[in-house]
Amino acid sequence: MDRQTIENVVKACNVDTSEGPVNARVQQVLVRLVTDLFQAIEDLDLSQSEVWKGIETIIDIAKADEFALMGSAVGLEHFLDLRADEADAKAGLTGGTPRTIEGPLYVAGAPESTGFARMDDGSEEGKIPTLIIDGTVTDTEGNIIPGAKVEVWHANSHGNYSFFDKSQSHFNLRRSIFADEKGQYTALTTMPVGYGLNPEGPLQGVLNMISRHGQRPAHVHYFISAPGYRKLTTQFNIEGDKYLWDDFAFGTREGLVATAVDVTDEAEIARRGLKGPFKHIQFDVVLQKDKAGAPSTEVERRRASA
Amino acid sequence: MDRQTIENVVKACNVDTSEGPVNARVQQVLVRLVTDLFQAIEDLDLSQSEVWKGIETIIDIAKADEFALMGSAVGLEHFLDLRADEADAKAGLTGGTPRTIEGPLYVAGAPESTGFARMDDGSEEGKIPTLIIDGTVTDTEGNIIPGAKVEVWHANSHGNYSFFDKSQSHFNLRRSIFADEKGQYTALTTMPVGYGLNPEGPLQGVLNMISRHGQRPAHVHYFISAPGYRKLTTQFNIEGDKYLWDDFAFGTREGLVATAVDVTDEAEIARRGLKGPFKHIQFDVVLQKDKAGAPSTEVERRRASA
Repeated sequence: MDRQTIENVVKACNVDTSEGPVNARVQQVLVRLVTDLFQAIEDLDLSQSEVWKGIETIIDIAKADEFALMGSAVGLEHFLDLRADEADAKAGLTGGTPRTIEGPLYVAGAPESTGFARMDDGSEEGKIPTLIIDGTVTDTEGNIIPGAKVEVWHANSHGNYSFFDKSQSHFNLRRSIFADEKGQYTALTTMPVGYGLNPEGPLQGVLNMISRHGQRPAHVHYFISAPGYRKLTTQFNIEGDKYLWDDFAFGTREGLVATAVDVTDEAEIARRGLKGPFKHIQFDVVLQKDKAGAPSTEVERRRASA
Repeated sequence: MDRQTIENVVKACNVDTSEGPVNARVQQVLVRLVTDLFQAIEDLDLSQSEVWKGIETIIDIAKADEFALMGSAVGLEHFLDLRADEADAKAGLTGGTPRTIEGPLYVAGAPESTGFARMDDGSEEGKIPTLIIDGTVTDTEGNIIPGAKVEVWHANSHGNYSFFDKSQSHFNLRRSIFADEKGQYTALTTMPVGYGLNPEGPLQGVLNMISRHGQRPAHVHYFISAPGYRKLTTQFNIEGDKYLWDDFAFGTREGLVATAVDVTDEAEIARRGLKGPFKHIQFDVVLQKDKAGAPSTEVERRRASA
């Protein structure tokens, strides 16, 4: 079937059928995506059975709450970051901590505090390493940003996130910490382990067909925001994890690799109020000043709240 | 972002990540669809928020069991029929009753009988018109095909299908009738009313944005199969329905419009064993002989069975 015929069918079905005012953007996107799909079916000579298999796979993935994760797995979420970087560069916005993917596991409404928060509920205390994260929030000229809101969330030692993992307590490993008057924040928590797809889930089923794993390196997610600055969505991934540069979601980026340093010094342990050795990560954040005409970094996306 | 960069990102994420043998077809399709999607995002300059809105819409539609219906609504299912027609024509396979869309509401395992079946459970008897469908199954040369399996399914007077509509009895308005020695089948049933999308559902929500209704004309679905013949998936749509040529699923086709004739003749009513006037539709079916190299008309697709 030639291109004109395909375009005619798409138009007959999706444009000529309109009986009143249309949302032009929705129609534009729909017509483009449907045309692309029909052309792909034609070019690849997909059988009807193949098309239905694809449709059923998408249904299964969506019903398993893995459809947004599929966006991560095929590189879509990373691609959106690359596009945002390009748009920033065109607008002359450079410097600062790199952005990277949000992922689908943020939950709004975490407990708030200033300067310091303990993030874990103690349920894994003593069984896995304690982690202290320290950081300072500054602008690209090195000026501190007191009161910046640092939202932090990460997985437990099984790679699972509270709220989605109902076995964890409410808001375990999720906190909003406002930087203190020195622009500093400290989180006392436990070492995360990288998230992995459900090995029995339909998304991993697709990845299996192309010999891909569904593992992420250990990482900690951040939203950082302050009035007059561009909101930053980022995360650090932890040096030494075997998946550091083999992340199924492509979230690891240069400038976002953190090293967890073992701290065994008794004085330092005592100063931190701990009972034994811990791991320490320094993750400073540099925000860009907002300016007129800058692309928005506020992404509207369905997020859980609890 | 230029084409080469997009292709590089897709390859880095979906090809270079493979750690073993791949299903080449799955990889080919995945790479094509992801590349098309990235290129569409680039060309239309879709914002991150727009992309997520689209993803969330697909999730909602899939979870509402409307994703296959979306395929009908955008013309995909009809497009697959047009492609099948073209493939048939190339293979020299012409003539016979036209194919049209199956839709997602077939259920395997309907009661079987030979020559005649009453399809309705009597629950709407006397409230809506009685319908008798007669037909003969022949080949393209007019030879009768005794024993052809005629699978028939249709909606009730609310446009709803048993199994999916739990208020209806088991297999109401679903039957498998084997043509008798004269190639004839008769179905005694009730007049269907066209299916309509859930007006509150997410698929209708999308159609609303482009001012499209989600209604089908009254119709009756068929699978017709017989050894040595190509399985036919079709339906007739009923003359006089306001949606006859304004079908949201694009199932109506030339050669598949049936006229329901009012029968008031007392002798005919008595001959049919009925108590009053009824509607009569003649729907003869012409099958193509199967031949070596003919494209398969057996579509593998997830179907309900009860």
